[in-house]
Amino acid sequence: MNTLNGIRLGRQTIQLPNPALILSQANIGGKQEGEGPLRDWFDEIGEDGFFGEKTWEKAESEMQKRVLRRALERADLKPEDLNFVLAGDLLNQCIGSSFGLREFGIPFYGLYGACSTMGEALSLGALLIGGGFADYCACLTSSHFATAERQYRMPMPYGSQRAPTAQWTATAAGCAILARPTGRDNNNNNNQAYITHITCGKIVDKGIKDAANMGAAMAPAAYDTLNAFFRETDSKPEEYDRIITGDLGELGHKIVRDFFSRDGIELGENFCDCGIMLYDSEKQDMHAGGSGCGCSASVFNGYILDQLRRGIWKRVIFAPTGALLSPTSTFQGESIPGICHAVCLRSGEA
Amino acid sequence: MNTLNGIRLGRQTIQLPNPALILSQANIGGKQEGEGPLRDWFDEIGEDGFFGEKTWEKAESEMQKRVLRRALERADLKPEDLNFVLAGDLLNQCIGSSFGLREFGIPFYGLYGACSTMGEALSLGALLIGGGFADYCACLTSSHFATAERQYRMPMPYGSQRAPTAQWTATAAGCAILARPTGRDNNNNNNQAYITHITCGKIVDKGIKDAANMGAAMAPAAYDTLNAFFRETDSKPEEYDRIITGDLGELGHKIVRDFFSRDGIELGENFCDCGIMLYDSEKQDMHAGGSGCGCSASVFNGYILDQLRRGIWKRVIFAPTGALLSPTSTFQGESIPGICHAVCLRSGEA
Repeated sequence: MNTLNGIRLGRQTIQLPNPALILSQANIGGKQEGEGPLRDWFDEIGEDGFFGEKTWEKAESEMQKRVLRRALERADLKPEDLNFVLAGDLLNQCIGSSFGLREFGIPFYGLYGACSTMGEALSLGALLIGGGFADYCACLTSSHFATAERQYRMPMPYGSQRAPTAQWTATAAGCAILARPTGRDNNNNNNQAYITHITCGKIVDKGIKDAANMGAAMAPAAYDTLNAFFRETDSKPEEYDRIITGDLGELGHKIVRDFFSRDGIELGENFCDCGIMLYDSEKQDMHAGGSGCGCSASVFNGYILDQLRRGIWKRVIFAPTGALLSPTSTFQGESIPGICHAVCLRSGEA
Repeated sequence: MNTLNGIRLGRQTIQLPNPALILSQANIGGKQEGEGPLRDWFDEIGEDGFFGEKTWEKAESEMQKRVLRRALERADLKPEDLNFVLAGDLLNQCIGSSFGLREFGIPFYGLYGACSTMGEALSLGALLIGGGFADYCACLTSSHFATAERQYRMPMPYGSQRAPTAQWTATAAGCAILARPTGRDNNNNNNQAYITHITCGKIVDKGIKDAANMGAAMAPAAYDTLNAFFRETDSKPEEYDRIITGDLGELGHKIVRDFFSRDGIELGENFCDCGIMLYDSEKQDMHAGGSGCGCSASVFNGYILDQLRRGIWKRVIFAPTGALLSPTSTFQGESIPGICHAVCLRSGEA
């Protein structure tokens, strides 16, 4: 079906004839994120996990404030210029976002997509821009190692041994400001980054029950969404410079690669994962890799956009994944549903 | 600014030249909801809080399944006909929605708007329909007295005395299916209900810290959003047959009325609140009234839509309110931010 402002290529994918411009971005990380391979692509690195606040939860909100302020500054915009802010986080009742954003006075739609939230926010933001409902829209999310541990894994005795499949919740946040393409150029590179397609994920649950192995729980969702994207856009993995999942980690990443291999599709060297990219697996030993909404958000709003803006990458699929569990669902013997929301980006002349 | 598919009337309000048709709806309630004044406007009343499940959380997911199935049946649609489902709930990590919806395989964007979720879902759904990105979109949410008590108020010793300002979390769910207006008529009435405007709320926090008085915490947000709606649409309260907030309860409702009175605006008899409408304040004694996402969702997807479809009401503002707190934020001494998302509805010929 041809829609007014988009071409629905299939059940899940919409192509935007008027792609959404990523006008500006900002990210922030904690100490460990600043010791990883992407150090140079962080705007700010915290010395500890508190960012000047007294509790970890307030620290997480503070990270959201800082990335939003910085992205606004870079875009030369004020909060009142934004039509919408789309945000969410992992905390119970998403307090990272509601307390982080309350002082800005921007019309706000709260999202919950677990670690897929950056993908969900970019997707809905691109649709709001593409549909002509907004000139400017901020998309942001965060996670914090200590708030996530407190919430998902309390009580945590010192000396607990983590499973080899466990991932490390990143202390990080990222924000992107989307705009209608108007020829404005707020960066010093030759290229701009645009969102050209979105693929909305379905909830996929293959029965994994091990909350210390979320990569395996999310892998079927990543496979489902990427598969839908390739099928509906009638394109092949080799046509993209990078296919970047959110935070599958080492194990989940391998599972997705295997799933595609069984279909006769090799994802190749360009298939990578923010959870693997964020930390140095040898020196930092985060076990299976990074996770948390802030993992993919900080990698996207730093390294990934930089590569697109420099024109090093021309076409990229960004597909963050989320595990839709809670401690209650785990206690009640439930399996872990996963979801993956993808956006397709291209680098184009400013 | 005139957008492609909407007229942005101001900072927060968009008028949709192609209004979204509410094709079908369904609701469900628990025993107490079925003993209230709106009994005849429930599609299904549970005998207990379990709906055939073994835990309250699974019961809440079951309510979401039932309302979605029923709304699909009424619209003569299958799950695979839906382009999007927009849903959320109050549970930690929104497991009411993710577990309720996982078997349907519908592209899913998870929302968190606390008790404003029905308004948020209808707003985003109307924009996706109005923007031409979807033919059909389901909007749903739920709440459950026992899951909310377990989560927000544990431990709960028997015999605890509730504050007079406390509200009662409704055990209820509601689902609406939005569609592009195509002339289809899936109800037996002479009129259809359409969403003509959306007003996106801002987070408003006036420093209320009493978690047993959420009506007062949410009232400033309701005032802010309704005020924006009237200002930006250049209309007056008396032009609407009903102005219905979500779940402010007795106290919050009075506060909003007072705020408007100070501005010289009398909201009049047509100003009402789902939290007050759902229960009989004398016979049922729910203290300040009902609350929870399912309160406004079940009143909207029952009584309110019925009055519009019958043409008894022609123009209605539906403005659910949410309190964006968590037990953690309360323990840490934080105040309670509120939000209110409004949609404007009209009754029109089928």
